[in-house]
Amino acid sequence: MAATFQALSRHGYADLTIQRIGDEFEKSKSLLYHHYDGKDELLLDFLEFMLDRFEETVPPEDPDGAGDHLDTILDHVLLEADDGDFFGAMVELRAQAAHDQAYRDHFTRSDAHHREGLADLIRSGIDEGVFRAVDPEATATFIHTAVLGSMVQRATAEGPVGRTIRDELDAYLRSELLVERSPE
Amino acid sequence: MAATFQALSRHGYADLTIQRIGDEFEKSKSLLYHHYDGKDELLLDFLEFMLDRFEETVPPEDPDGAGDHLDTILDHVLLEADDGDFFGAMVELRAQAAHDQAYRDHFTRSDAHHREGLADLIRSGIDEGVFRAVDPEATATFIHTAVLGSMVQRATAEGPVGRTIRDELDAYLRSELLVERSPE
Repeated sequence: MAATFQALSRHGYADLTIQRIGDEFEKSKSLLYHHYDGKDELLLDFLEFMLDRFEETVPPEDPDGAGDHLDTILDHVLLEADDGDFFGAMVELRAQAAHDQAYRDHFTRSDAHHREGLADLIRSGIDEGVFRAVDPEATATFIHTAVLGSMVQRATAEGPVGRTIRDELDAYLRSELLVERSPE
Repeated sequence: MAATFQALSRHGYADLTIQRIGDEFEKSKSLLYHHYDGKDELLLDFLEFMLDRFEETVPPEDPDGAGDHLDTILDHVLLEADDGDFFGAMVELRAQAAHDQAYRDHFTRSDAHHREGLADLIRSGIDEGVFRAVDPEATATFIHTAVLGSMVQRATAEGPVGRTIRDELDAYLRSELLVERSPE
């Protein structure tokens, strides 16, 4: 998986070959050919692996409640360093979904997974009394879309948009989601 | 340009060749080889062409003012039909910017151009008294990012997110941007 990521970052999807992934691979290249019929089969496995790793990176809960948990997730995906052009690799693979059904199936499933995670978090916050009784799915969809747009921009254009998006999402969340903390 | 779009939609970036663009081209293929050294040179011209066409599609002004103008633009980019997989073609080309500086330069410039257009519109609305005295660039960046995220999702995954994003952007704009219409 590390060799796949290295080769994808180095060559881009179009110029990627099993041979070039093998060049980054310490073990025998024949292992790769034995396990995978082509680069797409390997890359779809890579996407599953990265989805699992994302789950491990993002804490599943925050002892301080749903409000702090949402803050932690948004800081992580919008502000933290993009080590090793991970966003770029993901944008390249996502673009394959424009004309390849197997990639499209993966991103349909992973988008739904991320949206459901956010919707669960929003439901927890409503139960805790820190979030208003919003539509959890609609709010989750909006947050997920803004985060996706920010990642795509960071990977494909210059301009530090992460901080701006973080601040404007905060404004949206304050006015639409958060229960007022001070009595009115 | 039409032949380029057809070929890109049909084959995807990775499998695109000048030859395949030529197959969609009614005139002599040698014209293509004469004008372009490779597919990327042609595709970068295509991106410029599409940016100009976008300007022609989106009305430059609305006689009913900045509020209606913003509504018209958001309806157009979030809700209207994506004829001929245009978003998919754009996502494919944007993905090249993850590792190709010429594409990155294009999208840096076109993102800035779209953000500036939105910021100008927001400034007009502030002058008209229909928008609050927000930071025009920050608000424009947020709207642009949400629109980009929505386009990428529509092109690469199933799930009707356009309507949800439109409604949640409305909620954001109502609470952050629009001056209250009824007296308080």
